[in-house]
Amino acid sequence: MKFPEVKPVNRSNEAGIGKKIDSLTKPIGSLGMLERIAKQIALVQNTLTPAINKKRVYVFASDHGIALEGVSAYPQEVTAQMVLNFLKGGAAINVFSRHTGTEVFVIDAGVKSDIDVKHRNFLVRKVGNSTKNFLKEPAMTRMEAENCIQKGMDLAAEAFNDRVDILIAGDMGIGNTTVATAVAAAAGIDLEKVIDIGTVIDDQTLARKKETVRKALELRKPDPNDPVDILAKVGGFCLGEMTGLILKAASLGIPVVLDGFPVTSAALLACRINPNVRDYLLGGHLSFVKGHGEQLKHLNIEPILRLDMRLGEGTGGVLAVSMIEAAVKMMNEMASFDSAGVSRGSEA
Amino acid sequence: MKFPEVKPVNRSNEAGIGKKIDSLTKPIGSLGMLERIAKQIALVQNTLTPAINKKRVYVFASDHGIALEGVSAYPQEVTAQMVLNFLKGGAAINVFSRHTGTEVFVIDAGVKSDIDVKHRNFLVRKVGNSTKNFLKEPAMTRMEAENCIQKGMDLAAEAFNDRVDILIAGDMGIGNTTVATAVAAAAGIDLEKVIDIGTVIDDQTLARKKETVRKALELRKPDPNDPVDILAKVGGFCLGEMTGLILKAASLGIPVVLDGFPVTSAALLACRINPNVRDYLLGGHLSFVKGHGEQLKHLNIEPILRLDMRLGEGTGGVLAVSMIEAAVKMMNEMASFDSAGVSRGSEA
Repeated sequence: MKFPEVKPVNRSNEAGIGKKIDSLTKPIGSLGMLERIAKQIALVQNTLTPAINKKRVYVFASDHGIALEGVSAYPQEVTAQMVLNFLKGGAAINVFSRHTGTEVFVIDAGVKSDIDVKHRNFLVRKVGNSTKNFLKEPAMTRMEAENCIQKGMDLAAEAFNDRVDILIAGDMGIGNTTVATAVAAAAGIDLEKVIDIGTVIDDQTLARKKETVRKALELRKPDPNDPVDILAKVGGFCLGEMTGLILKAASLGIPVVLDGFPVTSAALLACRINPNVRDYLLGGHLSFVKGHGEQLKHLNIEPILRLDMRLGEGTGGVLAVSMIEAAVKMMNEMASFDSAGVSRGSEA
Repeated sequence: MKFPEVKPVNRSNEAGIGKKIDSLTKPIGSLGMLERIAKQIALVQNTLTPAINKKRVYVFASDHGIALEGVSAYPQEVTAQMVLNFLKGGAAINVFSRHTGTEVFVIDAGVKSDIDVKHRNFLVRKVGNSTKNFLKEPAMTRMEAENCIQKGMDLAAEAFNDRVDILIAGDMGIGNTTVATAVAAAAGIDLEKVIDIGTVIDDQTLARKKETVRKALELRKPDPNDPVDILAKVGGFCLGEMTGLILKAASLGIPVVLDGFPVTSAALLACRINPNVRDYLLGGHLSFVKGHGEQLKHLNIEPILRLDMRLGEGTGGVLAVSMIEAAVKMMNEMASFDSAGVSRGSEA
């Protein structure tokens, strides 16, 4: 398949952006990470006056054949039940999205059952009814993997048409951290460093999860240099759609806020397809899932929030939006030393 | 002086609050720090349905005689200039307060010059025109120290009358981190652990700052068991008013979000006056100023945000409000497993 072109951000403005931030009435550098965020958004938007008006989270739901290996604390029907909860507005992602003024779209990327609900924020972008159990056979065909990426790309294009300024990617599906672990390991991160609990499971389940991933990688042999092959052999429908979303959003100049572990596995694949994607990514939070820190380190992304969260759904990404908006407003609304008539310090 | 009574929060509801949080549609504990915040606010408000409607930040400004020792990168007139910036809405605290819907009141606790401005959000609560240089003599008299505490207490009472649900304390004043360092050290935290840069200063200035504080403590001999004595000998007007604010807010059952290093020195004094104050305190952020982490550890307070910020003004506290509100909304707006018809996992 042909992937869209992703250009690096235009850094010819970088010094000017830094100069503007340093002219504001605060000691230089004293807003720390907010200054770095403001700079990144200004670079992505290629302006000294960045703006974030429309925010949208896509919450991808799908089922995973690997869940049948008993790697999760929850039964598989929870995926579909949670989709209904999202549509009724009762999940954490709904609460935090209302709080930060973020529009929520729920995507059925491949839930096992067909969800027969009409709702303006529910989009059926189904690639299949659950992936296959990748311990026994590839999770999906190469064509399905490409289909996932395409559907995700189409969603980014829709967001662009709707003038969305920032996208948050989230996901939900029983077994998703196992899939994300396999993908991260296949993409080259040491399995020991990314294996972790997901939802709370006991030591025995954790050992089974690790052994399952190890064995699956041995059997499926995904090609580390071919993201589509990784996706097909040990991936998931959500993960594939998120990969396409991130890739296309970057190509359209829309910044994407990552959430937790599965989303960041998708980001690893998108950056493998085109390293320039990195310029457009923000780390919403550092998940309690230990492998997430490894992934972020690998991508050289600094998480904005550190709240010990491990829920997924996009919750960490959507909460971080509040900080990203604060950073952008700093850039636009703060007075400068000159305009406010404040004396500069010896550091300036 | 007679201090108000501060009761510990009523913990008879604690199990019920925990049970409600665990009934919500998310894996148990998966919202990490937000769950701990929700629990604390519910305990302080003594309810299963906490609410935060009205938010207010008091930004205390005052000058410090110790600034004459050359411990800061900025000239002293910046204190008054920044007050005017606050009143024109151009400072970081204004931007972040608008962003989070927080009302800003600026308090002149003792700026060197008299600021002749009428503004509904500017309150003159002046104890003097700058403290004295505490390297040469006590910063203020014991009566002035008590006067500071009383003025801060009165502000908490005003907030209570105005039905404020949560208070944020912030401060600004050239030399304030030097004062905060002296107070923290006088209150029993090892000087080596709290001495740090404040606004960016060079190694030589840092050495002078440390030597200044060490010598001042030796000369002034504040009584570690008498917070009023500490305040009088090496404190500041802001710090005293914040101490009174925190103490009285706790006695009235209003939670207080701390900002950075100087505010947390005030919290140390308030908790020294009455350890029950601790129940009502939230850590807004972990400042880049290294001693702040020591102070928070001492108080056993977990910072909500970690953004490498070191600006003061209440900025870290006001940004954290967004997370505190999210936590409270989680508690009120999320569906339960039963109400949403979602199957529970094996962990439940």
